[in-house]
Amino acid sequence: MSVVLRAAVLAGGLALALEATADEGMWMASQLPDLAPALRAAGFQADAAALADLTRPPLNAVVKAGGATGAFVSANGLLLTNHHVAYGAIQYNARADRNLLETGFVAADQAAELPAGPDFRVLVTVGFDRVTDEVLKAAQGKKGRAYFDAVEAANKTIVAACEREPGMRCSVATMDYGAEFFRIRQLELRDVRLVYAPPSAAGKYGDEIDNFVWPRHSADFTLLRAYVAPDGSVADFAPENRPYQPPAHLQITHDGPKDGDFVMLAGYPGITYRHRLSYEVTERVDWGLPTSVELLTGLIRVIETRSAGNAEAAVRYASLLASLKNASKRFSGEREGLLRGDAKQLRETAEQTFLAWLATSRQPAAIKRDIDQVGRLLRDASATRERDLILGLLTRHIQLFNAAITLQRRALEHDKPDARRESGYQQRDETLLLAQMKQVQRRYEPGMEQALLLSLLARYQALPKEQRVAEFDAAFGSTGPEAEKALAAIYGTTRLGDEETRLAYFNGPADALRQSNDALLVLAAQLQPALLRLEHERKQREGELLRLRPSYMRALKAWYAQSQRALYPDANGTLRVSYGRVTGFRPRDGVEYTPVTTVAGIVEKHSGKVPFDAPAALLAAIAKGDFGATADPTLKTQTVNFLSNLDSTGGNSGSPVLNARGELVGLNFDSNWESVSASWQYDPRYKRAIHVDMRYLRWLMEKVWPAPHLLREMRLPADG
Amino acid sequence: MSVVLRAAVLAGGLALALEATADEGMWMASQLPDLAPALRAAGFQADAAALADLTRPPLNAVVKAGGATGAFVSANGLLLTNHHVAYGAIQYNARADRNLLETGFVAADQAAELPAGPDFRVLVTVGFDRVTDEVLKAAQGKKGRAYFDAVEAANKTIVAACEREPGMRCSVATMDYGAEFFRIRQLELRDVRLVYAPPSAAGKYGDEIDNFVWPRHSADFTLLRAYVAPDGSVADFAPENRPYQPPAHLQITHDGPKDGDFVMLAGYPGITYRHRLSYEVTERVDWGLPTSVELLTGLIRVIETRSAGNAEAAVRYASLLASLKNASKRFSGEREGLLRGDAKQLRETAEQTFLAWLATSRQPAAIKRDIDQVGRLLRDASATRERDLILGLLTRHIQLFNAAITLQRRALEHDKPDARRESGYQQRDETLLLAQMKQVQRRYEPGMEQALLLSLLARYQALPKEQRVAEFDAAFGSTGPEAEKALAAIYGTTRLGDEETRLAYFNGPADALRQSNDALLVLAAQLQPALLRLEHERKQREGELLRLRPSYMRALKAWYAQSQRALYPDANGTLRVSYGRVTGFRPRDGVEYTPVTTVAGIVEKHSGKVPFDAPAALLAAIAKGDFGATADPTLKTQTVNFLSNLDSTGGNSGSPVLNARGELVGLNFDSNWESVSASWQYDPRYKRAIHVDMRYLRWLMEKVWPAPHLLREMRLPADG
Repeated sequence: MSVVLRAAVLAGGLALALEATADEGMWMASQLPDLAPALRAAGFQADAAALADLTRPPLNAVVKAGGATGAFVSANGLLLTNHHVAYGAIQYNARADRNLLETGFVAADQAAELPAGPDFRVLVTVGFDRVTDEVLKAAQGKKGRAYFDAVEAANKTIVAACEREPGMRCSVATMDYGAEFFRIRQLELRDVRLVYAPPSAAGKYGDEIDNFVWPRHSADFTLLRAYVAPDGSVADFAPENRPYQPPAHLQITHDGPKDGDFVMLAGYPGITYRHRLSYEVTERVDWGLPTSVELLTGLIRVIETRSAGNAEAAVRYASLLASLKNASKRFSGEREGLLRGDAKQLRETAEQTFLAWLATSRQPAAIKRDIDQVGRLLRDASATRERDLILGLLTRHIQLFNAAITLQRRALEHDKPDARRESGYQQRDETLLLAQMKQVQRRYEPGMEQALLLSLLARYQALPKEQRVAEFDAAFGSTGPEAEKALAAIYGTTRLGDEETRLAYFNGPADALRQSNDALLVLAAQLQPALLRLEHERKQREGELLRLRPSYMRALKAWYAQSQRALYPDANGTLRVSYGRVTGFRPRDGVEYTPVTTVAGIVEKHSGKVPFDAPAALLAAIAKGDFGATADPTLKTQTVNFLSNLDSTGGNSGSPVLNARGELVGLNFDSNWESVSASWQYDPRYKRAIHVDMRYLRWLMEKVWPAPHLLREMRLPADG
Repeated sequence: MSVVLRAAVLAGGLALALEATADEGMWMASQLPDLAPALRAAGFQADAAALADLTRPPLNAVVKAGGATGAFVSANGLLLTNHHVAYGAIQYNARADRNLLETGFVAADQAAELPAGPDFRVLVTVGFDRVTDEVLKAAQGKKGRAYFDAVEAANKTIVAACEREPGMRCSVATMDYGAEFFRIRQLELRDVRLVYAPPSAAGKYGDEIDNFVWPRHSADFTLLRAYVAPDGSVADFAPENRPYQPPAHLQITHDGPKDGDFVMLAGYPGITYRHRLSYEVTERVDWGLPTSVELLTGLIRVIETRSAGNAEAAVRYASLLASLKNASKRFSGEREGLLRGDAKQLRETAEQTFLAWLATSRQPAAIKRDIDQVGRLLRDASATRERDLILGLLTRHIQLFNAAITLQRRALEHDKPDARRESGYQQRDETLLLAQMKQVQRRYEPGMEQALLLSLLARYQALPKEQRVAEFDAAFGSTGPEAEKALAAIYGTTRLGDEETRLAYFNGPADALRQSNDALLVLAAQLQPALLRLEHERKQREGELLRLRPSYMRALKAWYAQSQRALYPDANGTLRVSYGRVTGFRPRDGVEYTPVTTVAGIVEKHSGKVPFDAPAALLAAIAKGDFGATADPTLKTQTVNFLSNLDSTGGNSGSPVLNARGELVGLNFDSNWESVSASWQYDPRYKRAIHVDMRYLRWLMEKVWPAPHLLREMRLPADG
């Protein structure tokens, strides 16, 4: 099953649409010609029909880059993405005597461009084809787990066949929760080089403190260049490679955005839940989010308590701590937003209206039966939701414990031919798995790991008996002291914390692993049947949802079509286009956020201390006030970032923002705090996306850290 | 010396003006006719000449009330001031079964109006007369302490003569740092009653959290009524008293304020330092503010540490802790504002320009000599500034220690005839002194007091030898352990912490006090010569400044006059008028504060928890949306508070805000955080005052907690 399919199915729910508000929508390219009248009414001046195919210009200038989005901005493969997307590539080139993160980087010419690192990929979509019939052929007539497995097998077959073509990375995208499937063929460019990056103090000015914050003052952009072999084929880094000639590139505009301007965004939003059942929204708000926050807060408290006075542990768990805090903060923000937006009531009302229409419509009776069945499946899943959440955290987020489970599962999968192995354990996943095994070393301390496990086990042991799992009870007992004793025995003897040992198991034969008497591997083996059983239950349910949800999407589409409305599919990591306008918002009574920030804000925020340590060159240039043609004609100063009501979500980092003529006017890099809940609900009062004003990029490249040759390559004025 | 004079002189500095910006200025009434063209240009439509005399209508409708400002709003003595100004009066009437703070209060008729308490005073200014010649007659030819004493003695004589008239409270105001003196005669109304108060949850919605905050949503108003004896004379509360007929009252307007509207404010601003020397501004920013914050933070830490686990001590010191925190926060804000406003540089530049003009002007040479002399005096005072700050805190803010010092000083003063006693120890001050002696009881705990003294003594003992004082060294030794031992001995035996004992000393003969062997009284007697010596040094310096600063003010006035500019005197608690306009501001790049808030903000802030626990009746009325004639015609909803750039400072609480026609459009109650530094510098970008929109008052009195009879009395529509 593809990652995209997994992601779309994971939360387990059913599609049900709210009536889309004017600027809501992450549209598939193929829907855009039909939206031409709405686009024109919104201010779009170019040809909507040209946007119909994402594998043709101009949309094929928009690519996947470093897991997010990027866009080609020159005929010679120059690629624009976010500083935070290219961060690893900059870091990869930093040396003690050449701290590129601190100094920034300007390649004087192509020879000076630096490899972005072996893992950095740019994916150019060259095929996007409907494969629904092929995927569902074997699944027809099946149910539950069998349906799930049939879809999974078909997807793997399609991907394997597709990847036989050299240089291709393929996937199957599940659209509308299983109603349609698309094969995505992407040219996987592996030689990517760093061309231009502002210093981090400008590129991520404000860093974590300003994350999700408006007003913003960040130069969150970086220029890369994709390279191919002299014969034009995809290749790893080699000095003789030459710049890739993209099929299309975008032109940066000479004008700036202003309040009310039409804007359009193209990129790869990851996942949204806009068409879920009201039951799922309610469960998310009333149970999922508060419970997750509570569980994560417990783990945060464990790490903080044990880190105090233990510098070594503090360092090893800093990364997990940061991500737990970030997740907890986001969950809180999501809940806050859904409550503010009255999401439960709105979704409930929309659903009732839809169901009332459905009851009187001529839709087949089977459709209505499917709807009821989906509702029942979701309610059934709720019966074990606490256990599933706790065991999910326990088995996936605790470093060494997770490594042991992964090793045992990999051993099991390696008994099968590659094509039949579980996703994540195929040959194509081996690099990632090895990296995970190595990473443990820097993020593990036995005392902390036991404390974290104990914290989660205490929650598990408090569950009602019917939710508990025999193998877990056998391994950890049913009381805190029993769990503590069991863990002390295991962690007192396991050698898996030793990297060499761990890698030996990883590289050795599966049998050696299975027969090992290492206490942690023995524990993982002991828990494996339970984990497989729980996985089976999940796949059983997900298979059913995959089979039944499409009925809803079809009915919903019929309902929308009846009133001449278009319905966009929930985001699933495929290319989408949204359109809207440049606009500020009122975060609260008496306060207005203007849609464009200026360099004055950089000076205001500057404290000299990280993350508000604006580079001296930037401060000097601001003080000098030499903004030239990049100054805003009304504000009479240099702008920095701007705000729009464009529909976006995680994955849209690095997405190009186009103006009414289709020129590049901004680079998307973040959302405001008030729209953390946008994956479930687009609240037109608060949903905003944050972009780098291309005039700021131009000014920095002209006057602050000059790169006239690159400006010329992008056909921009090179000296004010 | 009058309180006003003391306040004006305390910081010890010299007047020097910045060029006033358009909306800056706290004008004396007598200056307004000259400002008529500027007032007209700003939008004022009424007659500026009518504002010339603060003892005649309309300005004599503006009175001192409860230490701040209030204004009569009906012919029958109805008085409008802030909820926070009348707070004590509401609290005074609260009973266990009648919590007026919680419920609010609406007197059904005059018989139901409640006494505001014995201490609540309303002062109606009936005389404001120049007495400069009379004050300075005996001072001529004198210097230093002799000059100071001569002014002080003359002031006391004038006040005593003035107060011979029954019902009068008099004072002498020092204008322009001693250039002019004015006798203020005020009718002291002692029977004041509570008429209408919203519940505290509305009247101080947001309380400490929203203090100094914009956007604001507070119903910070209360209506009182002044009463006099049946024969019209001033009287204490008595049932047969009748409403006072004020010489003037203001009319609440039917319109609301809107962005850009002309507004004018009349009230009693306490103290400003706008005309101080650049040396004083620099010393304040670089030394005074940071050092004060550091010292207060030390005391805060002592209280917090000792309060943890000692509930009794926590309660007794809650009030001191709150005021230390508030002062520390304000000092930090003041410094932040002065740095942001570049106050040091601006004042320095203005001063240099003035001095350059002075050097070439035909001003007498004596003036120029005086300027140099003031500068020298200020620099000399800096030599002992650390000691003066520490001993000031030590002797004035530590409860029982201060009571002992006060008792000994009072005994000394009581040897003299009343007219020659030090200010604060005359017969007219006895009520306040007795209250202070009683108050100690609820705010003292021996362990905490010793800890606070030790914290300050540690700072004192660290001073260079030349700043130390023999009597203090003798009493407390020169090391921490010595001080600790001395304090333990004193606090181990003193009986002064016992209220009965303390009051017996207060009411007993002076000799009993002087001959007492109570350790704390013995200590106070031992320190008294030092304190008198330091006081003498201070008065010596202040006398010189009082003699010399007027030269500066005269030169400054001449400089201003030359370019047809008016110069307002620094605030000194006398009635002043400022004018400006309704306007929001940009607190930082990308953020705009709109000048008017609405009831939507009350709902947004409502959490159900103090201080954001909006009363149910208010929430229900907002939800109902029945705003009628008090709704803003553009915003289509009910407004709450508004913002102006009016020049104001502490003491302006309760000041009426008038529109272009001189009608009451708002009630001043706070400033924004960004203008905490306004006592030193009016920064036009950030200086804002916060007012209750009179439409909010009207709506609450019409629809939420109705009082139609009061609306009718104020000639306002009583039912929407």
